[in-house]
Amino acid sequence: MKLLEERIARDGVVKEGNVLKVDSFLNHQMDTDLFNALGKEWARLFADCPINKILTIEASGIGIACIAAQHFGVPVVFAKKSQSINLDGDVYSAKIESFTHKKIYNVIVSQKFIGPDDHILIIDDFLANGCAVLGLIEILKEAGATLEGVGIAVEKGFQKGGQELRDMGIRVESLAIVDGMDASTGKITFRPQPSHT
Amino acid sequence: MKLLEERIARDGVVKEGNVLKVDSFLNHQMDTDLFNALGKEWARLFADCPINKILTIEASGIGIACIAAQHFGVPVVFAKKSQSINLDGDVYSAKIESFTHKKIYNVIVSQKFIGPDDHILIIDDFLANGCAVLGLIEILKEAGATLEGVGIAVEKGFQKGGQELRDMGIRVESLAIVDGMDASTGKITFRPQPSHT
Repeated sequence: MKLLEERIARDGVVKEGNVLKVDSFLNHQMDTDLFNALGKEWARLFADCPINKILTIEASGIGIACIAAQHFGVPVVFAKKSQSINLDGDVYSAKIESFTHKKIYNVIVSQKFIGPDDHILIIDDFLANGCAVLGLIEILKEAGATLEGVGIAVEKGFQKGGQELRDMGIRVESLAIVDGMDASTGKITFRPQPSHT
Repeated sequence: MKLLEERIARDGVVKEGNVLKVDSFLNHQMDTDLFNALGKEWARLFADCPINKILTIEASGIGIACIAAQHFGVPVVFAKKSQSINLDGDVYSAKIESFTHKKIYNVIVSQKFIGPDDHILIIDDFLANGCAVLGLIEILKEAGATLEGVGIAVEKGFQKGGQELRDMGIRVESLAIVDGMDASTGKITFRPQPSHT
């Protein structure tokens, strides 16, 4: 999506170690006009899917998912990160390994909010190694829900997550795929996606 | 706000120990149509304030704040909960005591995103003891920003947070104020607010 690629090129900051900081508009300060454009594009791309609910994970996926949900007319459920598997009532849970924070945590979703009749779109801000999305997919399997696809704002195309999901037959629509970054020049290379606006 | 009070009365669940569960529409599963109505009401109530940014705190404040922001035409910044005061670059930080989770954690906001020129509306889903909001106010003071007011979805009027903030001269607009709950009957009593829709 040109609008997002241009914004990343303008306001993203490339740091050593393949770190891309987009905290001025995506995951700390949030530009809700941009989020609206992302939501509209996902609604166009997934128009043929009978999506009735969006699933995301706290924290930075929530804002994007909520604004995107307005374009689908469906509610959002967010998976909660949890030290312990507590909560009252029954929950689905999965373990996720965070490479950024070097730890493993549980994510949980109340069984009240996802079930076999649900057709789910997973939305998240970033896709790198894919651990968060794989955890959410595990939860959907436990729930017996149908995964319609995965909408990602920024995919790091040189890490394994996107390829792994696509190899599983999952439809992944990443609105910007970064294929390379150069911390010395700040240059970011995007993968061409002809079917996107 | 009648719409929110009716929704709490219908779908909220009262539990022993003054616990009000609104996770089916507010802070686990999220009804974005309802969030839109909340955002519109805050925009009406704070129409006389020169708000240029909304500040919230992860996780459950983010969805409400992002959708509300569309009615103000401003970006959102969310404070991050952090075990350690790390992050690269300079951050404002405050300590917050969580009664629900019985622990103290740091919240941080990058100094890049709040400064002396900002006129801030704080948005959050719940107000009980007020610790989260007081932490955000501390961050605004560090930043030299102006606090225009606080928008809360559900205030527990029988806990001290709301009164404490109002006694400090802060404008707090809680769209539903719960003055009492009865776990045996499920009955919830709301404080009348004639100036709200």
